[in-house]
Amino acid sequence: MSSPVPPTSNPSDFDKTHIRHAILQAQIGFQEGGVPIGGALVTADGVVVGVGRNRRVQKGSAIRHGETDCLENIGRLPAKMYQGCTMFTTLSPCTMCTGAILLFGIKRVVMGENTTLVGGEQILRDAGVELVNLDLSECKDMMAKFIAAKPGVWREDIGEK
Amino acid sequence: MSSPVPPTSNPSDFDKTHIRHAILQAQIGFQEGGVPIGGALVTADGVVVGVGRNRRVQKGSAIRHGETDCLENIGRLPAKMYQGCTMFTTLSPCTMCTGAILLFGIKRVVMGENTTLVGGEQILRDAGVELVNLDLSECKDMMAKFIAAKPGVWREDIGEK
Ligand SMILES: [Ca+2]
Ligand SMILES: [Ca+2]
Ligand SMILES: [Zn+2]
Ligand SMILES: [Zn+2]
Repeated sequence: MSSPVPPTSNPSDFDKTHIRHAILQAQIGFQEGGVPIGGALVTADGVVVGVGRNRRVQKGSAIRHGETDCLENIGRLPAKMYQGCTMFTTLSPCTMCTGAILLFGIKRVVMGENTTLVGGEQILRDAGVELVNLDLSECKDMMAKFIAAKPGVWREDIGEK
Repeated sequence: MSSPVPPTSNPSDFDKTHIRHAILQAQIGFQEGGVPIGGALVTADGVVVGVGRNRRVQKGSAIRHGETDCLENIGRLPAKMYQGCTMFTTLSPCTMCTGAILLFGIKRVVMGENTTLVGGEQILRDAGVELVNLDLSECKDMMAKFIAAKPGVWREDIGEK
């Protein structure tokens, strides 16, 4: 049985600091008229390897979600580098991004929220990936505002009719 | 008369923290066989807007320096966003990147070093841009190692024969 990751009661300073990089990307995406979801890949030492945002609308891309745009901006890294990193994402990773996280061997995912969507959390958990849900109202509010304004774009983003 | 920015005697925690994002990019570039120069654009609140690295070799690009690759990864931002940001770069910005910094209205530049090259520092200073030189041996050492290994690539990078 799949159950969404509950809100973390006591988030670390590390997680609260670095989700900001992903949130800024989501805000930029919102201003661009895109789907406001951002990602950031951060080392265990708190160094930002790269950031990205959903650019489906902006680039006419099918696969540029927050997490995949972040990974593509970074370019090709040695496998070992991904393994020590945390992927920060403003929203629970969709199935495609879940697969990308597994492919690259990323061991830790911190999400801004999973009220708007619960993605591949069970798949990640089963693979031993650590999941944290910060349950941030600013992430939920941004998505609610976007979905109300552009429901069709959002349905397409999550593969619904 | 142009004089290089002297080493900063008392760098702030902000500058010491955020130059790390640019240094990681330079290290990735080195591993890729490229010119090891990295950039990071960071808000006054310490949020990373984007990162990049010299990818002349990797992408066969003439214009992807640390700073310009960072700006291109980010995409188009409203003018106001750039103005509150600091551009971190592992090496004194070349003339092209100096021009890009002025074009986008970035008001503050923190460099890892200017021993390997002194770029457009006087132009930036004359335009009122704040310059900080962290004078980091790890940046100088990486460039020395690269230039010793690939002198021709470096000469091309700085427009020399
Ligand atoms: Ca998505
Ligand atoms: Ca350069
Ligand atoms: Zn996705
Ligand atoms: Zn340059």
